[in-house]
Amino acid sequence: MTPLSRRRALTLAGVGAAGLSLAADRGLIGKSDEIPFLGQYQAGIVTPAQDRLHFVALDVTTRDRDRLIKLLKDWTAAAARMTAGRDAGEIGAVAGIPEAPPDDTGEALGLPPAHLTITIGFGPALFDRFGLSAQRPAALEELPRFTGDTLDAALSGGDIAIQACADDPQVAVHAVRNLIRIGMGAVSVRWSQLGFGRTSSTSTGQATPRNLFGFKDGTRNLKAEETDALRDHLWVQPGDGPEWLTGGSYLVTRKIRMLIETWDRSSLTEQETIVGRYKGSGAPLGTSGEFDEVDFDSVGADGQPLLPATSHVRLAHPDTNSGARMLRRGYNFVDGSDGLGRLNAGLFFIAYQRDPRTAFIPVQRSLAARDEMNEYLRHVSSALFACPPGLSGPEDYWGRALFG
Amino acid sequence: MTPLSRRRALTLAGVGAAGLSLAADRGLIGKSDEIPFLGQYQAGIVTPAQDRLHFVALDVTTRDRDRLIKLLKDWTAAAARMTAGRDAGEIGAVAGIPEAPPDDTGEALGLPPAHLTITIGFGPALFDRFGLSAQRPAALEELPRFTGDTLDAALSGGDIAIQACADDPQVAVHAVRNLIRIGMGAVSVRWSQLGFGRTSSTSTGQATPRNLFGFKDGTRNLKAEETDALRDHLWVQPGDGPEWLTGGSYLVTRKIRMLIETWDRSSLTEQETIVGRYKGSGAPLGTSGEFDEVDFDSVGADGQPLLPATSHVRLAHPDTNSGARMLRRGYNFVDGSDGLGRLNAGLFFIAYQRDPRTAFIPVQRSLAARDEMNEYLRHVSSALFACPPGLSGPEDYWGRALFG
Repeated sequence: MTPLSRRRALTLAGVGAAGLSLAADRGLIGKSDEIPFLGQYQAGIVTPAQDRLHFVALDVTTRDRDRLIKLLKDWTAAAARMTAGRDAGEIGAVAGIPEAPPDDTGEALGLPPAHLTITIGFGPALFDRFGLSAQRPAALEELPRFTGDTLDAALSGGDIAIQACADDPQVAVHAVRNLIRIGMGAVSVRWSQLGFGRTSSTSTGQATPRNLFGFKDGTRNLKAEETDALRDHLWVQPGDGPEWLTGGSYLVTRKIRMLIETWDRSSLTEQETIVGRYKGSGAPLGTSGEFDEVDFDSVGADGQPLLPATSHVRLAHPDTNSGARMLRRGYNFVDGSDGLGRLNAGLFFIAYQRDPRTAFIPVQRSLAARDEMNEYLRHVSSALFACPPGLSGPEDYWGRALFG
Repeated sequence: MTPLSRRRALTLAGVGAAGLSLAADRGLIGKSDEIPFLGQYQAGIVTPAQDRLHFVALDVTTRDRDRLIKLLKDWTAAAARMTAGRDAGEIGAVAGIPEAPPDDTGEALGLPPAHLTITIGFGPALFDRFGLSAQRPAALEELPRFTGDTLDAALSGGDIAIQACADDPQVAVHAVRNLIRIGMGAVSVRWSQLGFGRTSSTSTGQATPRNLFGFKDGTRNLKAEETDALRDHLWVQPGDGPEWLTGGSYLVTRKIRMLIETWDRSSLTEQETIVGRYKGSGAPLGTSGEFDEVDFDSVGADGQPLLPATSHVRLAHPDTNSGARMLRRGYNFVDGSDGLGRLNAGLFFIAYQRDPRTAFIPVQRSLAARDEMNEYLRHVSSALFACPPGLSGPEDYWGRALFG
């Protein structure tokens, strides 16, 4: 049995007798759809948001620090391969042992990199073990309870987060599934989420997409091109906390169920008043262009403020939150139905930031208390992770500065 | 408020000041990615399988036959619009009533048709009501229980099925969500399934994709180009049953959980023996090409049969099933995790056929009894629907021959 590889499968498919091969379908993009895995920062944060997500939160079940370090090294190597469009390991007989299970599960054979990024983060509970307590950043505390939270503990938290984003969900699922496989016996899946429509742009080169309320979402998002703002609001700076996290970022996830059936029964005017933007253009009420500045003082023909104090755009705006900004890269989801005759749909909110204590937490406190949109939302999952900086080279591995 | 439309949004985006617009991102494909909604057969069956699925099974809650007929007409009109890349109805103020909810939910504004198809089917229980009992085809009976079935009744059955397939999941979800919205008060969501990687080709122009066992799936699927075989195995023929179903097809769905963690621990040789094909090429064991004929008599170097009596490819082959063939167009799924440390992943099996009594039922009986793959599978959902023929023109509507 000759071992197979994704690269070889692509080549074989390209010259195969079938004529219309996977290579012809998708592979022609070649390596131009590869996002570099190494770099100062982890990929998958300011990387232009891909269309699909597979996110997993893992519990570490091993109590052996060396086993965990070995896993982080193995994961790093596999992630480097997969983000380059390769398999996680050989598909065929491994190291001369014909009865060993394959080192890759195979469902991405023939598929290109599809802009795959794999991003890791560490949750607060991890730092209670493995001799890590002195390395725990002060900001890495479980998020507080917010007004209206209806969290499912089994869908919240986790020791380690892995975010896989790609333009092809099969590629993202393959990546997460193989990292779980490699972690068998050391980690266990706590919760997992698929997302299908990015709800934010992370680059000025991307159009603003729409969430399941039908509105453009993330117009004022932090963007990759805003270097100064990224320093101030996204990347952990020297002196912010323990050295291992410098160049990293804090990741907040919130699974937010949207009561879309109720929303769909409200009028366009009501929807626009709640959001504070026009549904069509995405322009703030009282303006004409999506990227126009929000005008807090605008009044309608009746002399009343166009943007009520409870409108989402007002409450979430940096000007009403001491300048707080985050980089959002959430996804829409539909997880089947809820058993009550409705779709189980909503937004899997993802936000990266330099410090949640001055970004997500105060903004969400304000939204939770006053946002009229809350009538249509249920927060069911919540988590916070500290994501280390990028990898400096092939010898580096996820968490080296933390465990080294 | 000027009403918006997807077409207008595309136009506006194309000339907008933002420069990098949705139109620039995706709209340039224009109308070339539109699948005709009208035709002799329903679209979404032999249509080259799109990459993404949103499937919903609905319970009819109204007892009013006229209300149901009105809904089928409204659905048909909305489906015609959406498959053409339009909104389900006006987004803005409807018919001069400014406080009416929008007739479209908006999340597909600016997105192209993305090869959207919407396909409808009627379940057995529908025919107990609405004066339809005489129209019920003999073949439209709930599927029998198969050995090993572990079905969840809440995820099975349904009065009406709607299958939306597209290359963009946001487009498929938008279609299903708007049809549900239009049906509010008359139908209720029974269960719903998203799928992300087609697991079959339905046209010779498509490469064979891979399922979550990492194997090519559907190599010997019925294909759109096999006109004679489609007549014999796919489309209900005159005289097969009630006239309203002539030109239609029976749809079987099975949600099949795959125990991928267990599978991933088995050796490549074991996986290939169970499937009866090589993982890399997809060729039947003992042959060299994916499309080579299965050789039931091939033996290995040890003189033993290469294809055991329990191999999947042998048990599912038409030659061991009195020539039975189906058109499969299933999808991979990952529905989060199972609470036991594993991904909830598998195959949402979809198969169309002329008569389930001579196709799915006997084949599945054989597989359920003997397929060694069963060790890694759990059937959790099951349903059968009768899908009417295509629509003859703008005046036709889903179910007209049935209700008319």
